[in-house]
Amino acid sequence: MINNPVIETMLNRKSIRSYTDEMPSDEVIETIVRAGQQAPFASQLGSLLLKRDREGNPFKAPLFFILCVDSYKWERIMARRNWTMMGDDLLLMLLGMQDVALMAENMVIAAESLEMGSCFLGGIPFHAEEIIKDFKLPPRVFPMVGLTIGYPANDHPPRPRYPIEFVLFEDEYPQLDDELVQHSMDVMDEGYLAQDYYLDLKAMIALQGDREETFTYDTYSWTEHICRKWGQNLFPPNLLQQFERCGFDLIGKYREEE
Amino acid sequence: MINNPVIETMLNRKSIRSYTDEMPSDEVIETIVRAGQQAPFASQLGSLLLKRDREGNPFKAPLFFILCVDSYKWERIMARRNWTMMGDDLLLMLLGMQDVALMAENMVIAAESLEMGSCFLGGIPFHAEEIIKDFKLPPRVFPMVGLTIGYPANDHPPRPRYPIEFVLFEDEYPQLDDELVQHSMDVMDEGYLAQDYYLDLKAMIALQGDREETFTYDTYSWTEHICRKWGQNLFPPNLLQQFERCGFDLIGKYREEE
Repeated sequence: MINNPVIETMLNRKSIRSYTDEMPSDEVIETIVRAGQQAPFASQLGSLLLKRDREGNPFKAPLFFILCVDSYKWERIMARRNWTMMGDDLLLMLLGMQDVALMAENMVIAAESLEMGSCFLGGIPFHAEEIIKDFKLPPRVFPMVGLTIGYPANDHPPRPRYPIEFVLFEDEYPQLDDELVQHSMDVMDEGYLAQDYYLDLKAMIALQGDREETFTYDTYSWTEHICRKWGQNLFPPNLLQQFERCGFDLIGKYREEE
Repeated sequence: MINNPVIETMLNRKSIRSYTDEMPSDEVIETIVRAGQQAPFASQLGSLLLKRDREGNPFKAPLFFILCVDSYKWERIMARRNWTMMGDDLLLMLLGMQDVALMAENMVIAAESLEMGSCFLGGIPFHAEEIIKDFKLPPRVFPMVGLTIGYPANDHPPRPRYPIEFVLFEDEYPQLDDELVQHSMDVMDEGYLAQDYYLDLKAMIALQGDREETFTYDTYSWTEHICRKWGQNLFPPNLLQQFERCGFDLIGKYREEE
């Protein structure tokens, strides 16, 4: 591993869910946003909604951004050039979500370099209706993810990650034998347990149906937690309708073809 | 604007499409990948395919990564814990594409900090069939985006971005009057023209249908270029089928509901 201040900043990043009262200055906000903007893009489809409202924001963070895939402002530009959107909305989302996430990660790293912490909120699209109302969003703006930023009120080590051999595959996708899968699980589970992560957050997800609980906070860790997220019906079932609510028809073109 | 080595690295990044012969060391590759892994995630759904093949890679880059949303390896973990995937594939993609893009941006910035350059290739999903064959991908792995990395053979200034008032909206989405839209267009177009960007790349997109060409490289710039991408049928029409080819049914659950 090579180290330098940039790599070090990235390796040191962790999600922060507790913030001090200090409100970042306008200059800090401008710096974070400008760093975000300079990320690569396909079509510069990102827009940022911001609330500086410690009491109302998630985790009482001083800054709460909602990062949006914004085709509205782009289509305003198209109209001024006498063009109309022909691309299908699925493609628009594939590229637009990347535009937004690339920008988001620069913001995260910029914040970290300014001694701040951040945390993503992934459930934002399921709140589309209230966000549209609250921020007076025009159609064709999709609120993709939330991001809290502020000065951290606590500190902890970075969280564990899969071993690199479970992530980087050269020339061909390997067989992934059970031993490697189990080793990757162990690295994650032992790493989170060593940090008392789920115990501190009291974050154990309840079992649905007639599965019997066999875990305690001594054994409950990352793989079990994420299994309970993806193996149960935790999210609202209407994601496609959230896109529709924001004026995007992801499957329109394909429906016509059937 | 505040400056520090991290912010400076992000503000200095630009897409590099021409590379020297130098092959990055294993240690450099490991550093870039580890920095990528430490990005935030919802479910750690990213996998990286790598080719070190200067002759075969796009732009003859020494490193070519294909960044994938990988539910295959995650579902191997679920199976070992006696779970099966219940989440719908649209949600999986919404969160998985963010996992991958956040990782990708850390890789871009890590590379930049190591004096390297990079460039994304957005059309990768349309080549799913050949990538599956070439890399022997199992089902449930979606090749989302390509990323070339290497030591730059040329240099140029960072590219322009929208003015911040066209990106950051506090408390509510503004009216975006024509003046601001036009100003944002001018900033982009004049910025790219000043760098001879499209002239150097010989990248003017031909007009389809009976639109008459009125642009030369003296006037053709960013907004016209992106309008021609989104306003014409340039991409293959079968994106949904590319997901299906990789074993993802984005609209299955919703089709049943109709």
